[in-house]
Amino acid sequence: MLQAGDLDALFAPKSIAVIGATNRQGSVGRAVFTNILLNEYTGTVYPVNPRDRSISGVRSYPSIHDLPESVDLAVVVVPAAVVPAVTEDCGKKGVRSLIVISAGFKEVGQDGAALEHQVASLAQKYSMRMVGPNCLGTINTDPAVRLNASFASRMPLEGSIAFASQSGALGEAVIDYASGEGIGFSKFISVGNKADVNENDILEYLQADARTKVILLYIEDIVDGRKFVDTVTRVTEKKPIIAVKAGVSPEGAKAAASHTGALAGSDEAYNAILKQSGSSGSSPSSTCSTTHEPSQNNRFPGETE
Amino acid sequence: MLQAGDLDALFAPKSIAVIGATNRQGSVGRAVFTNILLNEYTGTVYPVNPRDRSISGVRSYPSIHDLPESVDLAVVVVPAAVVPAVTEDCGKKGVRSLIVISAGFKEVGQDGAALEHQVASLAQKYSMRMVGPNCLGTINTDPAVRLNASFASRMPLEGSIAFASQSGALGEAVIDYASGEGIGFSKFISVGNKADVNENDILEYLQADARTKVILLYIEDIVDGRKFVDTVTRVTEKKPIIAVKAGVSPEGAKAAASHTGALAGSDEAYNAILKQSGSSGSSPSSTCSTTHEPSQNNRFPGETE
Repeated sequence: MLQAGDLDALFAPKSIAVIGATNRQGSVGRAVFTNILLNEYTGTVYPVNPRDRSISGVRSYPSIHDLPESVDLAVVVVPAAVVPAVTEDCGKKGVRSLIVISAGFKEVGQDGAALEHQVASLAQKYSMRMVGPNCLGTINTDPAVRLNASFASRMPLEGSIAFASQSGALGEAVIDYASGEGIGFSKFISVGNKADVNENDILEYLQADARTKVILLYIEDIVDGRKFVDTVTRVTEKKPIIAVKAGVSPEGAKAAASHTGALAGSDEAYNAILKQSGSSGSSPSSTCSTTHEPSQNNRFPGETE
Repeated sequence: MLQAGDLDALFAPKSIAVIGATNRQGSVGRAVFTNILLNEYTGTVYPVNPRDRSISGVRSYPSIHDLPESVDLAVVVVPAAVVPAVTEDCGKKGVRSLIVISAGFKEVGQDGAALEHQVASLAQKYSMRMVGPNCLGTINTDPAVRLNASFASRMPLEGSIAFASQSGALGEAVIDYASGEGIGFSKFISVGNKADVNENDILEYLQADARTKVILLYIEDIVDGRKFVDTVTRVTEKKPIIAVKAGVSPEGAKAAASHTGALAGSDEAYNAILKQSGSSGSSPSSTCSTTHEPSQNNRFPGETE
């Protein structure tokens, strides 16, 4: 496994390929490419499309192999069945990281889960960190980067809150609401199915991110509970984490399962995890959030010095 | 001389290089490049800049020679002194046409006029048609092209009026006003110093342009009066021309001279030319316009059948 520091290729790439960029109005491939282009990204973005000569006025390349250089990040917006081949191509070209936006993986059943496993294995084979699949993408408002590698309709304001969401739709709604209120973000990460990069990787990365003062998590499931406890314990020594856990009610759990293929754990288990790691464990499926300030680290809510 | 049909490379290029594109806020090089990029140009645009790796997120090339292909059009936004060398480079690369936006030519005096002559000769040597120098650029609202190769702050609405203006500022003001009134344009051409492409070339081109129903001219001087008479006579057989002549009063003539280096002719001479060619010849320096419908061709105003 690479070090957490390598997530820089995901969040602050110098160059990007959008594989599946297109001129088709209303398509995700168009939204992602123009979001990178129109939000004044400071690096270089290349559209990859086997048919079109140019995408949004920018010279396009038939495949990742045809690019004049390798890239730090490939954003993948092609049908699920093609993602393994594209991942292999990226690995061979020396691409450093992936955001797989395409859906049709674990969240659609067993065949999708097998495909997802195949993609994750290929990413690992070529030492590429991967966000997704089945995600909205990522955003970095740092003026040195200015990257909206998502199909969110709006670039959030610059701010000091980092927000990792297991729901792309909820993430976008929060960005829209926050923009209206004048609230900004340092980073936004739609984690999707978390086939590789999960909440633990992101927390590690955000702990070291100078532009992030507060971390906001929207969780439907946790990949590795024990590691999560350790990570949160460590991260909250530096900055507060606000965690919102969904899928507590049977209906909520069902919605979460159909959403990203997550199995929502029992409310009690999450409460225990969050308490153990220094966050209070309240977790209704709606919006209750619990904050944990570094100065209160490792004490249960209500406990005094 | 090339045929008028070759102006297609200027108005409907498949590929463009912006030489002098930059990331610098408030610069003309940035405005021109982003105007092409953000108005959904259907071709491919390449930024050329010797320092920056990318311009507005798009891979940049140190010189025109480094482009992966030749281009139909080069838009030149570099200091006047460098324009001859850039023109020669474009010629050698096989570029088909030029828009020279840079100022500092005939309008600044004798040295500028010599430089302009040098640039025009080089363009002719390589059979490149050239708009400018000292111009705002051109616009084509045709959905098959969608090109704003200017530093006008606004892309006009689509419409059937073609507008050729010898004043960039007046052209931009008219576009702004027309947009507010819901009036659209087929083409906009800021002719600048008319070192090569002049009103006669443009009238020939617009006569054959299926998207143009009416031609609007704002003139400060006419390059070749006899040819203008012939051209207007021929063009008005197909579509009406509205001509506005500036620089009639001594003050107006002085303003026109300092503007594009044009020598405004006498009011009487222009009246005679416009009358002879079938337009009525009223030409105050402000806004009086005269229309000429094809059905009234070659008759003086007030004349009956």
